Amino acid sequence: MQERFVDIAIIGAGTSGLNAMSQARKAGKSFVLINGGEPGTTCARVGCMPSKAMIQVAEDYHRRTHLGRYGIDGHEGLQLNLAEALEHVQDIRDTFVDRVLGSSTDDLPEDLFLQDYARFLEPTLLAVGEQRIRAGAVVIATGSRPRVPEPWRAFGDKLLTTDSLFELADLPASIAVIGLGTIGLELGQSLHRLGIQVEGFDQLATLAGIRDPEVNQAAIQVIGKEFPLHLGQPVQISEDGEQLRIRAGAHQISVDALLCSIGRVPNLEGLGLEQLGLELDARGLPPFDRHSMQVGELPVFIAGDVTAERPVLHEAGDEGRIAGYNAVQTTSGKRPARFRRRTPLFINFCDPNICIIGQGFDRLDRDQTAIGEIKMAPVGRALIMGNNRGLIRVYADKTSGRLLGAELMAPRGENLAHLISWSIQQQMTVEQMLRMPFYHPVIEEALQAALNDLNRKLEVKCDGPLTELALLEPSDGTAASR
Amino acid sequence: MQERFVDIAIIGAGTSGLNAMSQARKAGKSFVLINGGEPGTTCARVGCMPSKAMIQVAEDYHRRTHLGRYGIDGHEGLQLNLAEALEHVQDIRDTFVDRVLGSSTDDLPEDLFLQDYARFLEPTLLAVGEQRIRAGAVVIATGSRPRVPEPWRAFGDKLLTTDSLFELADLPASIAVIGLGTIGLELGQSLHRLGIQVEGFDQLATLAGIRDPEVNQAAIQVIGKEFPLHLGQPVQISEDGEQLRIRAGAHQISVDALLCSIGRVPNLEGLGLEQLGLELDARGLPPFDRHSMQVGELPVFIAGDVTAERPVLHEAGDEGRIAGYNAVQTTSGKRPARFRRRTPLFINFCDPNICIIGQGFDRLDRDQTAIGEIKMAPVGRALIMGNNRGLIRVYADKTSGRLLGAELMAPRGENLAHLISWSIQQQMTVEQMLRMPFYHPVIEEALQAALNDLNRKLEVKCDGPLTELALLEPSDGTAASR
Repeated sequence: MQERFVDIAIIGAGTSGLNAMSQARKAGKSFVLINGGEPGTTCARVGCMPSKAMIQVAEDYHRRTHLGRYGIDGHEGLQLNLAEALEHVQDIRDTFVDRVLGSSTDDLPEDLFLQDYARFLEPTLLAVGEQRIRAGAVVIATGSRPRVPEPWRAFGDKLLTTDSLFELADLPASIAVIGLGTIGLELGQSLHRLGIQVEGFDQLATLAGIRDPEVNQAAIQVIGKEFPLHLGQPVQISEDGEQLRIRAGAHQISVDALLCSIGRVPNLEGLGLEQLGLELDARGLPPFDRHSMQVGELPVFIAGDVTAERPVLHEAGDEGRIAGYNAVQTTSGKRPARFRRRTPLFINFCDPNICIIGQGFDRLDRDQTAIGEIKMAPVGRALIMGNNRGLIRVYADKTSGRLLGAELMAPRGENLAHLISWSIQQQMTVEQMLRMPFYHPVIEEALQAALNDLNRKLEVKCDGPLTELALLEPSDGTAASR
Repeated sequence: MQERFVDIAIIGAGTSGLNAMSQARKAGKSFVLINGGEPGTTCARVGCMPSKAMIQVAEDYHRRTHLGRYGIDGHEGLQLNLAEALEHVQDIRDTFVDRVLGSSTDDLPEDLFLQDYARFLEPTLLAVGEQRIRAGAVVIATGSRPRVPEPWRAFGDKLLTTDSLFELADLPASIAVIGLGTIGLELGQSLHRLGIQVEGFDQLATLAGIRDPEVNQAAIQVIGKEFPLHLGQPVQISEDGEQLRIRAGAHQISVDALLCSIGRVPNLEGLGLEQLGLELDARGLPPFDRHSMQVGELPVFIAGDVTAERPVLHEAGDEGRIAGYNAVQTTSGKRPARFRRRTPLFINFCDPNICIIGQGFDRLDRDQTAIGEIKMAPVGRALIMGNNRGLIRVYADKTSGRLLGAELMAPRGENLAHLISWSIQQQMTVEQMLRMPFYHPVIEEALQAALNDLNRKLEVKCDGPLTELALLEPSDGTAASR
């Protein structure tokens, strides 16, 4: 069979693959983009976008429960037309999928966009249908899919995942959400707010990947008031007539459907990674360098959710860029470059938002770390918003005063998380942060209060006579030239 | 008459005065706090807090106009009970006033808290009622009040200001808002959304102090769709039976009341500043150093809204701290210290928010400045929120790539403005900002898009092969050690 040669073969037309393609294109390299399955990114099709659209409707509908306190009458008369709401979510989703496709694969010539699955025959030789592609470098960006235990597949339509949920024209009256990580928590809360009878289950005792036990406790309290949570016990599921019976410890309920959100698995089946000649880990992944995305020492790169490292869009984009750039380097006879990765940032868009930023609580050197905190209850703006629930915890190195990380549940948490992650990436100290502008009345003042609390617990001394303001001229603090 | 001696006399028990008092107390100095008029800060009584409470109700009520698009039925049945809404605003206001008083003046011994007006007899001698206070240093923190042209006072109850608006048990059916700076725009939009028939007037052709003509145009378009704006012409007002007749150019209307929001004036009457022996400016203000808050070379300091420089709470707090600290210094025989002020940040909480950050557009060296922009219309998250209106403009030095300032109208603008002001204060370049985490889908991605646009217009070259990611090791970009 004849081999077709290209500089770079990219397997997967999601966020990472498309970013890798941009690099190939910019460098003037020949390439093919190979995509088995549905075109469109995970984000636009089944991830960020439809979930955020559903969250928005759910939040707006839920807000009716506040309106009476403000003198807005008639809020009891608000009713959700579920079919219309779902159609809206699907419309939004379609808009974003079309936008992605329109700016990427729609205009690709047929011979550059192969809509089929790829299989490694050698590290640089791929089988794609009847074709053989010989590439100077290969980028693996095949993404991930919901993890579903094999026996649960027997539940047929009663088993929902993010792949099927956003396709529904109507929703079941009751849903058990199994797995309360990012996806399960966001969707569980939204489904509950849309009027579905929801109960949440997780084998772990934590929500949304929170590691800080105080923040976790706060989150369980806030979310647990909205719908029942059953944590720390495995579930057993069986058919129960038209319904499913869910058991967790002594608790059991019957529901119309379950949302399976126990994680995602890398798309590796049939890819033939064993042909790379490298040892694969338990998940089937080869060793790779997260700064160069290079697989072993091969002219092969891996990027995006398939790595199972940072399954969020902006990181998938970065990994695609790095992999694409280094694929270009390799095919130009140069060594791959290693890049500094961004400060870790994970946002759960439940209400209030849950965010995990920088160094995880579980990886802190507790002897060397000071922790500041603020409960959202008394925060002025949060009170005004009628959403003063949650807790912010910030971590800093005791000696240097540098901010290391934070975990929080707060309204506008997504915005605070940016401020915090930018500060960590710039290696700011708590004092430096306290000298930045904090307007009034804003949610950022909650962060300010947490930082003030943290500052009191540091060993490092204040630089100058006022914590909040730096001296204009170097001074002993007792005199300043005019 | 006998003179009573204190180390520090503070005139005004608002945000600045209270912060100055904290410094005196911390240093163990004797002090008196002198306050004529209502106790409680401008912020809590008539400023930030009641206005934000009113904005929140107005926004929640306005949101009903979106609900139908999402399949939330019955939104036409929502009705505002104005009296209840106003009561809620007043409750919130009272809560915050009580909180301020409870943590400041409530527990002050009578002889330390003089509830009367002060008058300078000499730079360090004050008359307060029957008392004479001789002070080692004086802090002037008398605040400001709404500017009202003398002839308008004849309109009696039909003339509203922020001093009277939040006291009303009901609202007039129609209100002309005269002056569309920060206060007029926030309240005008809220009143309109609460169902009042509002028209806005300003002698200037700009809204909310915006200097960037493009952002101003965008704001006029967005706000002008909500209620009529009449800009660039002075108004003439006359009585019209039970109503007021407002004329601006060819336009005229009759309204039940007017909200006078044409600015605020420093509280200086009766203060006897002429006794300081310094030349006073047209507004009656003595010369002062904004880094030390010292008045001339006197042991007198000035802080907060009375300076008419940065009439926002966090700056008033800073000025109070500086003035208080330097009053302490002076009474200890030391020279006042000069402090670095925070990056200017002004937020208008209208919807979408209007923000002015860093160097004003009017003060940019246009030859040396590159401007990036993004319209909010196509921004993913803004679309999902159903609030994709506005424009972000960011300014950087062409040669160094450093961010200088920004003006914007955007949903969650208040949060973006923090990210931007922190970046400016840290002297970040556009490229450094682009290497920070931007999650998805968030409003911060709009800032990212504006920065990308700006980056393309800079003369400075990208540091490394990828704009978005820094090389881990110094490198020529072609090879990196492993």
